Amino acid sequence: MTARTRTLSEFSAIPQLEALFRQASSRVELGIGDDAAVLKTKGRWVWTVDSAVEHVHFERRWLSLVDLGYRSFQAAASDVCAMGGAPFAALSSVIFPRGFSDAELRELARGQRAAARSLGCAVVGGNLARGAELSITTTVVGSVQRRPLLRSGARVGDELWLCGELGLAAAGLRLLQQRKSHLASRAAQSALRAFRRPRAQLAAGLQLAPVAHAAIDVSDGLAGDAQHIARASNVEVSIDLDALAAALSPALIALAPTLGVSALDLALYGGEDYALVAAGPRRARPAAARVIGAVSKGRGVWLKAGQSRQRARGGFEHSSR
Amino acid sequence: MTARTRTLSEFSAIPQLEALFRQASSRVELGIGDDAAVLKTKGRWVWTVDSAVEHVHFERRWLSLVDLGYRSFQAAASDVCAMGGAPFAALSSVIFPRGFSDAELRELARGQRAAARSLGCAVVGGNLARGAELSITTTVVGSVQRRPLLRSGARVGDELWLCGELGLAAAGLRLLQQRKSHLASRAAQSALRAFRRPRAQLAAGLQLAPVAHAAIDVSDGLAGDAQHIARASNVEVSIDLDALAAALSPALIALAPTLGVSALDLALYGGEDYALVAAGPRRARPAAARVIGAVSKGRGVWLKAGQSRQRARGGFEHSSR
Repeated sequence: MTARTRTLSEFSAIPQLEALFRQASSRVELGIGDDAAVLKTKGRWVWTVDSAVEHVHFERRWLSLVDLGYRSFQAAASDVCAMGGAPFAALSSVIFPRGFSDAELRELARGQRAAARSLGCAVVGGNLARGAELSITTTVVGSVQRRPLLRSGARVGDELWLCGELGLAAAGLRLLQQRKSHLASRAAQSALRAFRRPRAQLAAGLQLAPVAHAAIDVSDGLAGDAQHIARASNVEVSIDLDALAAALSPALIALAPTLGVSALDLALYGGEDYALVAAGPRRARPAAARVIGAVSKGRGVWLKAGQSRQRARGGFEHSSR
Repeated sequence: MTARTRTLSEFSAIPQLEALFRQASSRVELGIGDDAAVLKTKGRWVWTVDSAVEHVHFERRWLSLVDLGYRSFQAAASDVCAMGGAPFAALSSVIFPRGFSDAELRELARGQRAAARSLGCAVVGGNLARGAELSITTTVVGSVQRRPLLRSGARVGDELWLCGELGLAAAGLRLLQQRKSHLASRAAQSALRAFRRPRAQLAAGLQLAPVAHAAIDVSDGLAGDAQHIARASNVEVSIDLDALAAALSPALIALAPTLGVSALDLALYGGEDYALVAAGPRRARPAAARVIGAVSKGRGVWLKAGQSRQRARGGFEHSSR
């Protein structure tokens, strides 16, 4: 296939857009290529946009509209938190199918409001339009105290840090996809809640901001998102599988056999989490961060278990369409 | 029908969302209910989001992808211009159907870039996701020098001003809907261009900002958008049909019979234009503004022709779905 006829993927298109839109401006400190744009007036704020699309990112039988509003908002805000920002305002653009009711919109909005409030953020406007399927596009702006936390900046010798849960939301998604959500175990309930009610890591991002050298939120699985740090920072990132396994929740470990996958695979390739992964110096590690690997000279993401190591596979792609 | 089961409309839902999201914040000067949100850090900037959805706002046979990118960007930026702002940064969120190609995305992005450049605005990021149909959601931020131009603020005794073309883009849309776009007349070409390549009224907005009392962009037809000013300002807006007719382009007047509608109806109810309508004092009228009516004590929007007057009908609703 040639470039002219290649079918679009969410991932392959970014570099060409980055090149196309590259432009200098005294008020734009950082454009395409990281989690959010950085704009400067006097105070510095970061700005992002994210979409949740029916049949691609969610099915309506998987979660209530309140959950959907909550989840889609946290997912968008997560990019601001990953930059060390505090979300303070958001706009919500909803495309809704024929027959969608006022009451349903209200449910969705209630979830958005709950998520916004949990983050100290205001929803200040938006847009409504009809369409074939439900989608929610959320744009969030946040303030940063000093410098934003980028994907680039990881240094040789840094520790690799994890803030938040990995893999549990992906387990919840698989419970729903495999129609096992009726499982009444506490582990299953934890996983469903992790999927339906993820939390952007606001406090962790604020703790990381003054000390970390690089950070990203894990929306597509640890392996893929660590790859973004490795590439942008021009370093090798190694993940210590023993340390990662020790950081996984008991609920995830209990559920994995039921789902027919390993808990480590869900953490590495599962997506849906919105944990933060950061690189920074050992002496400055914040309380919220657990060490799960290291940054060294080289390229790519490697998985280490004892003396053996292997290259990580690529990240997760939303695959229901 | 009860409120609980009422089918959602783009217009009925705003007040309930406004109530739901109302929240105080020192950095949010204005939230839902006007063209764009106003946020303050040190410099003051305005912020908006707008979606263009396939089969609702456009059909792909009507315009090229470059046109679509251009048009959707100008439509979003128009809200910033209507507040007297200068767009300086934008994020673009594109939902694309299966089979959409890299080359097609590039075409779309080229149109966005051309529109952004024409406004001195940078595209600083965005999001890509798959979906059933093509939609482009654009969020634009702009700076305002002093105060933003709101819908409220029109005063009894103000003139009603028009900046830009009215009705010509709606004529272009009807040429396409009626499959008459092959008409080779210069009038038809002007109308098609007005639909495919609208221009947000940046310069007019900047001229209006220091002198007008209220303004709005005409995205849904003059009658409907003037109604927003009348309601928000608690005044009567009267439109002088002779003055309006004199402000219409010769191309529109030439085309209207072919389309089976009156030129005035296209201006009043047609939408798609992105002209600005403002209210302000006669002594301060800017060069770009034409007088098309007046603001007086009362309510609603009235159409005047000589001694007779009648209440205007409501605005335009996107009706292809």
